[in-house]
Amino acid sequence: MTAQKVKPAVGIIMGSNSDMPVMSEAADILKELAVDFEVTIVSAHRTPHRMVEYAEKARKKGLKVIIAGAGGAAHLPGMVASLTTLPVIGVPVKSRNSIDGWDSVLSILQMPGGVPVATVALDGAKNAGILAAQILGASDNKIAKNLQKYKDGLKAKVEETALKIEKEGYRGGKIGF
Amino acid sequence: MTAQKVKPAVGIIMGSNSDMPVMSEAADILKELAVDFEVTIVSAHRTPHRMVEYAEKARKKGLKVIIAGAGGAAHLPGMVASLTTLPVIGVPVKSRNSIDGWDSVLSILQMPGGVPVATVALDGAKNAGILAAQILGASDNKIAKNLQKYKDGLKAKVEETALKIEKEGYRGGKIGF
Amino acid sequence: MTAQKVKPAVGIIMGSNSDMPVMSEAADILKELAVDFEVTIVSAHRTPHRMVEYAEKARKKGLKVIIAGAGGAAHLPGMVASLTTLPVIGVPVKSRNSIDGWDSVLSILQMPGGVPVATVALDGAKNAGILAAQILGASDNKIAKNLQKYKDGLKAKVEETALKIEKEGYRGGKIGF
Amino acid sequence: MTAQKVKPAVGIIMGSNSDMPVMSEAADILKELAVDFEVTIVSAHRTPHRMVEYAEKARKKGLKVIIAGAGGAAHLPGMVASLTTLPVIGVPVKSRNSIDGWDSVLSILQMPGGVPVATVALDGAKNAGILAAQILGASDNKIAKNLQKYKDGLKAKVEETALKIEKEGYRGGKIGF
Amino acid sequence: MTAQKVKPAVGIIMGSNSDMPVMSEAADILKELAVDFEVTIVSAHRTPHRMVEYAEKARKKGLKVIIAGAGGAAHLPGMVASLTTLPVIGVPVKSRNSIDGWDSVLSILQMPGGVPVATVALDGAKNAGILAAQILGASDNKIAKNLQKYKDGLKAKVEETALKIEKEGYRGGKIGF
Amino acid sequence: MTAQKVKPAVGIIMGSNSDMPVMSEAADILKELAVDFEVTIVSAHRTPHRMVEYAEKARKKGLKVIIAGAGGAAHLPGMVASLTTLPVIGVPVKSRNSIDGWDSVLSILQMPGGVPVATVALDGAKNAGILAAQILGASDNKIAKNLQKYKDGLKAKVEETALKIEKEGYRGGKIGF
Amino acid sequence: MTAQKVKPAVGIIMGSNSDMPVMSEAADILKELAVDFEVTIVSAHRTPHRMVEYAEKARKKGLKVIIAGAGGAAHLPGMVASLTTLPVIGVPVKSRNSIDGWDSVLSILQMPGGVPVATVALDGAKNAGILAAQILGASDNKIAKNLQKYKDGLKAKVEETALKIEKEGYRGGKIGF
Amino acid sequence: MTAQKVKPAVGIIMGSNSDMPVMSEAADILKELAVDFEVTIVSAHRTPHRMVEYAEKARKKGLKVIIAGAGGAAHLPGMVASLTTLPVIGVPVKSRNSIDGWDSVLSILQMPGGVPVATVALDGAKNAGILAAQILGASDNKIAKNLQKYKDGLKAKVEETALKIEKEGYRGGKIGF
Repeated sequence: MTAQKVKPAVGIIMGSNSDMPVMSEAADILKELAVDFEVTIVSAHRTPHRMVEYAEKARKKGLKVIIAGAGGAAHLPGMVASLTTLPVIGVPVKSRNSIDGWDSVLSILQMPGGVPVATVALDGAKNAGILAAQILGASDNKIAKNLQKYKDGLKAKVEETALKIEKEGYRGGKIGF
Repeated sequence: MTAQKVKPAVGIIMGSNSDMPVMSEAADILKELAVDFEVTIVSAHRTPHRMVEYAEKARKKGLKVIIAGAGGAAHLPGMVASLTTLPVIGVPVKSRNSIDGWDSVLSILQMPGGVPVATVALDGAKNAGILAAQILGASDNKIAKNLQKYKDGLKAKVEETALKIEKEGYRGGKIGF
Repeated sequence: MTAQKVKPAVGIIMGSNSDMPVMSEAADILKELAVDFEVTIVSAHRTPHRMVEYAEKARKKGLKVIIAGAGGAAHLPGMVASLTTLPVIGVPVKSRNSIDGWDSVLSILQMPGGVPVATVALDGAKNAGILAAQILGASDNKIAKNLQKYKDGLKAKVEETALKIEKEGYRGGKIGF
Repeated sequence: MTAQKVKPAVGIIMGSNSDMPVMSEAADILKELAVDFEVTIVSAHRTPHRMVEYAEKARKKGLKVIIAGAGGAAHLPGMVASLTTLPVIGVPVKSRNSIDGWDSVLSILQMPGGVPVATVALDGAKNAGILAAQILGASDNKIAKNLQKYKDGLKAKVEETALKIEKEGYRGGKIGF
Repeated sequence: MTAQKVKPAVGIIMGSNSDMPVMSEAADILKELAVDFEVTIVSAHRTPHRMVEYAEKARKKGLKVIIAGAGGAAHLPGMVASLTTLPVIGVPVKSRNSIDGWDSVLSILQMPGGVPVATVALDGAKNAGILAAQILGASDNKIAKNLQKYKDGLKAKVEETALKIEKEGYRGGKIGF
Repeated sequence: MTAQKVKPAVGIIMGSNSDMPVMSEAADILKELAVDFEVTIVSAHRTPHRMVEYAEKARKKGLKVIIAGAGGAAHLPGMVASLTTLPVIGVPVKSRNSIDGWDSVLSILQMPGGVPVATVALDGAKNAGILAAQILGASDNKIAKNLQKYKDGLKAKVEETALKIEKEGYRGGKIGF
Repeated sequence: MTAQKVKPAVGIIMGSNSDMPVMSEAADILKELAVDFEVTIVSAHRTPHRMVEYAEKARKKGLKVIIAGAGGAAHLPGMVASLTTLPVIGVPVKSRNSIDGWDSVLSILQMPGGVPVATVALDGAKNAGILAAQILGASDNKIAKNLQKYKDGLKAKVEETALKIEKEGYRGGKIGF
Repeated sequence: MTAQKVKPAVGIIMGSNSDMPVMSEAADILKELAVDFEVTIVSAHRTPHRMVEYAEKARKKGLKVIIAGAGGAAHLPGMVASLTTLPVIGVPVKSRNSIDGWDSVLSILQMPGGVPVATVALDGAKNAGILAAQILGASDNKIAKNLQKYKDGLKAKVEETALKIEKEGYRGGKIGF
């Protein structure tokens, strides 16, 4: 990755450093797909002005997509979306005191008409990274090719496992088709 | 009410005018309890800067409590709480596209450590008004007395109804104790 | 709209014609934002081959984003996402026999790692349209400007309503700040 | 079991090898009931064409029932059902990132009119195996007898435990009837 | 239908006559698929002995599948399944006092290991009928053909609607692919 | 009913007169079963002292069972149970602002160890009445006989309806067994 | 306990021996309250005839209350209630594959009109035991006294702990009132 | 802290000593904010009279806010609120047998009109402490300053962490803005 030499296209932010184990999966997959990104902490509730600044400067400094992760009453993705016209991807994080993740999911997903957040699955930061790449890949052929290669890889791995099970049996016994 | 002559102590805000039928119950009960208030629309998602300004000026202009109502992914109460040290009362509104109110409730209630929102029941704007009065009444004897009178009224009404049912029967037949 | 003259960038599909009252809001807002689109019915469960064909041809024919709406066990958005590298926006529709919308939401949102769907709120087709425009607007200045204008309009409308309430009172009485 | 010599009547598929610990219980009980089966991996989202092929060839190659297990936004059972007229049994698997299993259950159970999936309990692969045998046993007396024997065994085990508790007490003390 | 002349293969039962508006959809689709059936009321809670008798005689009198519908704490499908080795299809009915259907769904779906119920969607009686036909059709070519014809019909209807929308527009404007 | 002449054995209380349409079903069925009862309003939140008095005097004045109905954060049944050793039956009422009844159910059902409430279904006041009669009937043969007669009536009504459907068909066609 | 010498008044049954760790708490508290009981296993789904026999003989052999515990699609309490006029207490057990206990709770609680089950909290077997004693104690002064003594003990223990905290501080610092 | 010398302004109560690990966070933060408080155990269900006494004496002895924590069917906060005009903050505790915390949340939050409880997040005792300080700080400048200092500290900590990640990378690679 040559992130140092280019302006990152994807900004990954999260409400707290405790979200990092989940959110770093977004960064990891973007690396794998050769998409430049930046990562930092922006808390809606503890640093609201920093959040306003981050969201309002995002387009100007070259970001094309923002990935925002948060848990509980998760306001970061929606508030960032209120402050920019860039697409914002929200990652509901199942934080420590979350009620089984429902609060994170609903407070990110259920945005009012006019201010969308592209929500992915609970703790689905990897998919947030892929979705960011897909957004860029809609008009960038190189990224589109990387995405296709990644997709082919997923398929190949399933077929390989399937073949192994069909040959060796799930625990012996003839299986497969 | 003599709101014109005094600085209101309670600010009632809501994300949309469509929340007014619910939120006006907060205003009505404050009138009944002789507490001065102001009402306006502040949308976290459509007017984020207005929200920041409202929250940051609140203490200086004399507000002592803020009541904020919103529905769906309801970020207004929590974001206002992030911008002031005044107590913020959140009213989850069951808006049109809400998933049975769960989104409104959870995105207001489940605030992270450090930034509380005093949450009341779904569509519980009346209780938000009473709670605001209780907060003021903790150190204001006149309001405390009004609250006690209101409480006595609730009790009297139950006892009156009970007496009627015990006398006349729920549909005839002897009932009551 | 001059949709006839250009290749549409957004494909709007839905599982059934009964989803049209919800899904047409995506089309309406795209018109307002001057983004070309196409609309048709593609059912994952009743026309699986049509779905495969639609998804696999989408990129080649010029689509850059697909909006897919479905209700109940809603498989259309996720299956389309499995067949293309384009970004897919999923709209959970609260269909007639849906269990309060939970089935629609969860079967679209909770995609496994590798195959994201950008999920919006229950019946949130309008936001799906805006999100599609934001995706295009990330690298199209004209659309970005239309989005900013739309955002400004939302803000203006809130401020206008707020002013009116502050002047005239929520039901009389001085209100506003 | 003489699975090698006969065409299996039941096909067991699952979205991922990580579902095997759950899904192998379907295979185990089919063995016990002397019903021939095959097992393999078919992912709706990572190998959609493999899924189409598997489902469309199923009847021709002699399968009479398909058991499909998947978790999260679980589309495999419903999509297979859309591609065959064979009965499809769906097993909701409580996968790692599932929201307590609700996503798996609802995205399998809530199929639209026209395309049923016979859904069993969360992680209920054993019951999926028994149900497959019951479907075959509806017109196969040997399997029906094996099922009756299995049922008798369940009953006997309960009665044996009950007798022991009634004799020896749940912790001493006379119990039983 | 020539039900009088043949032994019905499918028994449709329900806990209460109030379930009939839902459950008659199972009967209607079986008629359409030319599968013979019988319909009656069997209540687990009000006629437990009738239920035992019905379930235990079912196989002997020629039934091959039982469809049982019930709402609330819905015990009929599971109890019938405990008394026969025939496949039992459960239809969760959203009855008047049901908690949004969750009680009906969970008390039918979540059967313990050993006693499966093939559960369909909430109020999904039509799918119960189709599933019953699929079970019979696994070894009855005529029914299998009827099912295929029905499936083709579903597909044709989607394609016809799609064509109309693509031609005439969803509200004007070019749409379709 | 000869309630005037005897000390009622069952006390029916409810938090508000608005619960009467639900709670009067408890009274109606007790009349039918010839069990004497009394009915009144006791609010945990508006008349806490009246509640304490009612609960503490209940045993002395001859009550043997208390039926308490309430909605939302429903504290009446549990608080009454904390103040008496009589069995308390709780009826969760789906009141106007209840979140689909979940609040009523959980705040009555989930009592801590030491203070049970016998909870019946949401809005299940009729069953509360029957349960009260069963409690009395455990040691009162006359009530036990009335209960048996009532049970027989339920059965007869099902059988009658079943016979009619089997004869006349659910919409024509031979049905029944 | 002198269970050997008397006819037990309370029958404790459960669907499986795996429910014993929960259900034995009902037995333990009945011992403490000097109420005679019996314990055994009766499975609705694996031994339906044993269940019918148990329920129908219960009153004749002297039982006055039945406590029935079960998990998942928990049909035992409701089915026993359909077969006797004795009061039946249902204990929802959070069994291994239960969906967080919701299935157990709803399939016991939500009984249809006519056939009540006195439901206690999830895994609330202790409260089932106390409730059984309260039912007997409604007309048995000795048991009523034991219940009052137990209640006094609960109170004393709270007061003792409170006193200790008020004296010693929750972690130092003055506390208490 | 000089708690010994002054009358505490905040009373912290909880239903059971087992709530202490959660509830002590309220006390800890009040210490940090230099607000005097007292802590004790008051059980709604095991010591109802103690609860009545505590609530009714609260205002007279100088308390200005009451924090009440409880789990399961959590009646303490609401019942205390029914007995005083002081503001009551409710902390839903996720106790051992709670159904994922939903019972605690709903039985505290969903109070009827007239008797509010200021509810905070599940296990959110720290926020309860901050909210109590905010209520006092509405008219006490010293506490208001301490709150502002605390708020500034939260912000500083986020900014420090953000800076570190932006410098050192989330795992290498350029990040930050």
